[in-house]
Amino acid sequence: MVNVTYSGNYADVMTDDKKQKLKQIHDGLYEKTGAGSDFLGWLDWPSGLSQSFLNNIKSTAEAIRGQADVLIVIGIGGSYLGAKAVIEALQPYFDKNPDFEVLFAGHQVSGAYLKELMAYVDDREVALNVISKSGTTTEPALAFRFLQKYMKERYGNEAAERIYVTTDEEKGALLTLAKEKGYKRFVVPDDVGGRYSVFTAVGLLPIAAAGFNVEGLVEGARAAENELKAFDAEDNAAIRYAAIRHDLYEQGYTNEVLATFEPKLSFVQEWWKQLFGESEGKEHKGILPLSVVYTTDLHSLGQYIQDGKRDLMESFLIVDEADEDLEVFEAENNADQLNYLSGLSLHDFNLVAYKGVSEAHLSGGVPQIGIHVSKLDEYNLGYLLYFYMLSCAYSAYLLDINPFNQPGVEDYKTAIFKLLKKPGY
Amino acid sequence: MVNVTYSGNYADVMTDDKKQKLKQIHDGLYEKTGAGSDFLGWLDWPSGLSQSFLNNIKSTAEAIRGQADVLIVIGIGGSYLGAKAVIEALQPYFDKNPDFEVLFAGHQVSGAYLKELMAYVDDREVALNVISKSGTTTEPALAFRFLQKYMKERYGNEAAERIYVTTDEEKGALLTLAKEKGYKRFVVPDDVGGRYSVFTAVGLLPIAAAGFNVEGLVEGARAAENELKAFDAEDNAAIRYAAIRHDLYEQGYTNEVLATFEPKLSFVQEWWKQLFGESEGKEHKGILPLSVVYTTDLHSLGQYIQDGKRDLMESFLIVDEADEDLEVFEAENNADQLNYLSGLSLHDFNLVAYKGVSEAHLSGGVPQIGIHVSKLDEYNLGYLLYFYMLSCAYSAYLLDINPFNQPGVEDYKTAIFKLLKKPGY
Repeated sequence: MVNVTYSGNYADVMTDDKKQKLKQIHDGLYEKTGAGSDFLGWLDWPSGLSQSFLNNIKSTAEAIRGQADVLIVIGIGGSYLGAKAVIEALQPYFDKNPDFEVLFAGHQVSGAYLKELMAYVDDREVALNVISKSGTTTEPALAFRFLQKYMKERYGNEAAERIYVTTDEEKGALLTLAKEKGYKRFVVPDDVGGRYSVFTAVGLLPIAAAGFNVEGLVEGARAAENELKAFDAEDNAAIRYAAIRHDLYEQGYTNEVLATFEPKLSFVQEWWKQLFGESEGKEHKGILPLSVVYTTDLHSLGQYIQDGKRDLMESFLIVDEADEDLEVFEAENNADQLNYLSGLSLHDFNLVAYKGVSEAHLSGGVPQIGIHVSKLDEYNLGYLLYFYMLSCAYSAYLLDINPFNQPGVEDYKTAIFKLLKKPGY
Repeated sequence: MVNVTYSGNYADVMTDDKKQKLKQIHDGLYEKTGAGSDFLGWLDWPSGLSQSFLNNIKSTAEAIRGQADVLIVIGIGGSYLGAKAVIEALQPYFDKNPDFEVLFAGHQVSGAYLKELMAYVDDREVALNVISKSGTTTEPALAFRFLQKYMKERYGNEAAERIYVTTDEEKGALLTLAKEKGYKRFVVPDDVGGRYSVFTAVGLLPIAAAGFNVEGLVEGARAAENELKAFDAEDNAAIRYAAIRHDLYEQGYTNEVLATFEPKLSFVQEWWKQLFGESEGKEHKGILPLSVVYTTDLHSLGQYIQDGKRDLMESFLIVDEADEDLEVFEAENNADQLNYLSGLSLHDFNLVAYKGVSEAHLSGGVPQIGIHVSKLDEYNLGYLLYFYMLSCAYSAYLLDINPFNQPGVEDYKTAIFKLLKKPGY
């Protein structure tokens, strides 16, 4: 479950007009009649996932872990952020001798990175998962050109057994190549955009290969799909979050800082920035999404948030319970003057800090939203990510924006391709 | 050298009024008569650094590398961001068997992190560098409480030889403790705030311990200090950058996206966010600093930057030459349709992408600033960081804001301490 709190008066947000508009959005979503409704495959995706699909993901992940020590996932944008977000949230900070690693490539263009990556994996067994709907997105295609060659040189004909492709079911350069070479294939569905694809094979295969419980993740997403389906202007968390942030946007709070006290959530924040930024940032509208990790960034952007230009709202992503923790112990000499904290756990310290920071920023003029999940596990992450996707759809529609396209992305691509004299440009 | 370009007409920025105001700021800085002038120690710090100071840093770093495999740096905000920025910019992406590692702690509050960190270093030799002016900043003090105990249990009386303290010269809890225990000490100067402290022992000791050339870094900073000292409204890079971004701010471009194509600069971006956010974000004024790494985030925030709310300016931090690189090779089947790039290096691809993205974003209504450095090494980083610090001072003064205090930071601290019932609150 996700619980959404607000420092303002929710009754002021949920006017009759707003309720009516949200009801229309709700109906347009579930009747698939709104703008961009060809891309609503994610909406009932969790409940529609078959056990045989999940079994295939799990057994392929097992096979990868059997044949390799490292899986290099090649993808960019929505083709890597969902998997990266879940893996970073669940894996330990430090792992001296990892028995299996998931690494990423093709999410940028860097010769140094690719060279060092190939040197790094050279004495370990490697598998690749290439994720691209078309197969011609420049960054992953470039990385795959180098890594495919690397695999061929290293494994010869057996390379094909170590390359897994997630791409379009019916067309595209990567599909053609995969068929020709006999690479095992998974599907990027036609009706699910990249930033909504974490519960498809795009996200699930790398997450399963990393050793995490994809069934738990999907179960959480299913619970969210089910619980957030009904129109309830008061208690539906996805509607609440969308309505509050839209109301604040209309009041001039046009930048949203997503804050967390859990450093492991920093890639969930990156995933959230793509989700909301790319869904809403159109037609010279949209809330600018940015992120901070506390208490770290209280010593960095904290001053600005407290006292800077007053166009910020702040939403806190709070994990209520900690798995691993430490308790402050009494020190004999109390040189650091911290004995007043004796007996407090570090997680409880963060919960108190959340209260204090939120009070201070509110009184500085920054409206406060709280997004609470109970703990950091597969189930709750699945719930949270689905919640954000659904809320994002409501939020973009409140701006009268199609949440599911990204027309602005073509502009820079065209400009680059022209400079590079790409055939056809 | 740093070179600053602008998509607009610089003559429109540099009006006579602006020039006069900047001259006043210049004189106030160098005559130390402006607001906050007690904290101008950083201004002539590079040229004032003695060789014996640098020798002490270098020999201590050597001693640390001799006695330990891991240095844990304990600090938060300005006490870790400078060192982290330089180390991340210079170290490889992957290092299978690092002979020496610099790790960080006390930059957040996480029981899981501390527990895993202690387990991670348990079969390697460890040293600590605790960095805190007062010794009572909560996060590093908490981390040090746990890690000091760990060191005592592991090394007994010899722990003292492995603990290095960077703190106030004359007062404070950490100084008292260091004297009592006989820890080797370095000084956080009184007249240099945390976010301006990278060239003091705060930054230099961890950077030297990580194996990098602190003399090169300081040499770059000295060159910047020297070259940017004279008032020149046209050609002084620090004045140019400050004047352009201030002019854009006055036109309503109140958010600045710092973009780079070099993933290794992501902590220079974090350092920059603290520097500008904490220096300028006061009295309900200031440019909100945010950062993106391209091409990665073209597939994330790119849509928003192209088409979203038009209150963004974008400044590119561009490294003109690459050390390590790869060249796109011709593929036989050209399945990925990338043969048109054959012969192009990945770094050159990024330089073309910079041009294309900058053109596209400009035509989308986002004014463009370019900050160019020739390469990624100690010298150029030293120059760049000094350039940003000096430009930040000009920029804050243009807003009539004292760049060197952080009054808003007290608000959340007070709120937290009250909730925790800290003695005196």
